[in-house]
Amino acid sequence: MTTPHTTDRRPGGEVTVAVCQIAPQIGDGAGNQRRIRAAVEEAAGRGAHIVVLPELASTGYVFTDAHELRSVAEAPDGPTLTQWRELAARHDLVIVGGFAELGGDGRLYNAAALVDPGGLRATYRKAHLWDGEKTWGFTPGGAPPPVVDTAYGRIGFMVCYDLEFPEWVRLAALDGAELLCAPVNWPLYPRPEGERPGEIVRVQAAAAGNRMFVAAADRAGPERGQQWLGGSVITDADGYPATALRLGEEAVLTATLDLAEARSKAISDHNDVHADRRPALYAPMVRER
Amino acid sequence: MTTPHTTDRRPGGEVTVAVCQIAPQIGDGAGNQRRIRAAVEEAAGRGAHIVVLPELASTGYVFTDAHELRSVAEAPDGPTLTQWRELAARHDLVIVGGFAELGGDGRLYNAAALVDPGGLRATYRKAHLWDGEKTWGFTPGGAPPPVVDTAYGRIGFMVCYDLEFPEWVRLAALDGAELLCAPVNWPLYPRPEGERPGEIVRVQAAAAGNRMFVAAADRAGPERGQQWLGGSVITDADGYPATALRLGEEAVLTATLDLAEARSKAISDHNDVHADRRPALYAPMVRER
Repeated sequence: MTTPHTTDRRPGGEVTVAVCQIAPQIGDGAGNQRRIRAAVEEAAGRGAHIVVLPELASTGYVFTDAHELRSVAEAPDGPTLTQWRELAARHDLVIVGGFAELGGDGRLYNAAALVDPGGLRATYRKAHLWDGEKTWGFTPGGAPPPVVDTAYGRIGFMVCYDLEFPEWVRLAALDGAELLCAPVNWPLYPRPEGERPGEIVRVQAAAAGNRMFVAAADRAGPERGQQWLGGSVITDADGYPATALRLGEEAVLTATLDLAEARSKAISDHNDVHADRRPALYAPMVRER
Repeated sequence: MTTPHTTDRRPGGEVTVAVCQIAPQIGDGAGNQRRIRAAVEEAAGRGAHIVVLPELASTGYVFTDAHELRSVAEAPDGPTLTQWRELAARHDLVIVGGFAELGGDGRLYNAAALVDPGGLRATYRKAHLWDGEKTWGFTPGGAPPPVVDTAYGRIGFMVCYDLEFPEWVRLAALDGAELLCAPVNWPLYPRPEGERPGEIVRVQAAAAGNRMFVAAADRAGPERGQQWLGGSVITDADGYPATALRLGEEAVLTATLDLAEARSKAISDHNDVHADRRPALYAPMVRER
């Protein structure tokens, strides 16, 4: 069984990307599974080829302590990625989402996975941990963001705070990511009136600086008193949002993009955002300080 | 002779930063000197301690060819920096601005200088050249952005397209720049309705990603048929504009900032935008490709 959109598939050409701004809740694993299924089915019904879920989509985020986190973490062959593989196969999708991984080494990782109709293609462990993640027992990852060739284009992915490090975004872009998918959970912070949230601004800059599409799937809230931004965004390769924001709402946002545009990094007759780099001059930035 | 604002000087504390959005014109060196003087004097009269001028402020930008560029390029002891040193001394200012440098090696550089009442403190040669700059005979610089201790704080600077390379911004920030000054000339490009220009978005991201203030002085136009954005912006250390934009107008924008805020890179109980970096993992980005 496949949804009708599969006839629209144009490898290397236009694809529809969905970001699912759902509201997972700690301690409600079954409810989170339902929320994910409903959002992915809505996305598929709207013609999505690539679906991005938030960070820690199947568990919720606001853990009390390492014990609670460990109690819900699971291996890549656990129920969460099993569900995503089934949804990907049924609807002919690429799905990227975040989950709490119990590693084969017994450690806990704030992880993400990319699945497609062929199954699990890659997992990733967040390399830059945020705040409480450092006290709940997550171990930071030590591998670069994966970049995977899929039927719909070349897709890189990373998790939330990773995006704030242009070095990390650059690695994915230099590895040829046409679309960078980012499961995120952005806490709500005050900002000056009329200003677009900084998290979105930084995604825009990440996209434009690499002429790469970016799809960040944020969550809605609240959860255990924590308010969330709900700032999911899909940008074009110039860094401008490709669809209206739905700040704070539960929503599925979609945009149709020609990912092939990201293969050219040219921005003028004599400029190319990657070829113009001066890597030899950047060496001091990779020194430990 | 000093202007009254000098009594407000609080080293390491609040300072007033001005960006001068003037409209230099090719072939009108005397007029460009007058425009610079008028803008700097307006800034000083409004209490500025640090004044930023556009890229190639004394010559204009739209050269026809290398011959025309060479005819107006000058050494650091030429009339342009002589004027800026005099203005800095008279009004007790730090001035950062862009000029066309004829190097001691006979080469042409798209350069910038920082002067203060003590004289010329540092020069810099744009490392990432934009479009026609590559055909007009400019040689790209090969040294990192200078970061200079001044009476008003620690100031880094670079020129226009350099800002689009987060690596370059990071180097200045890691060297302790509290304020990054950028003389720029941003061509006007179409953008989606209601969107803030991407050049400004990327400055915001540069600031927030390093918890560093940024002051970009753009130019107004037109010049030989080229339209300019006029997108000068001063951001706070969270990347939000500290003063209203004056897109496309000739204007002097000022903002009063506590540069000491940039000395802390903390953004949560357990996060610091510099200490959280994983330099060893970034090594692939400095390889030549």
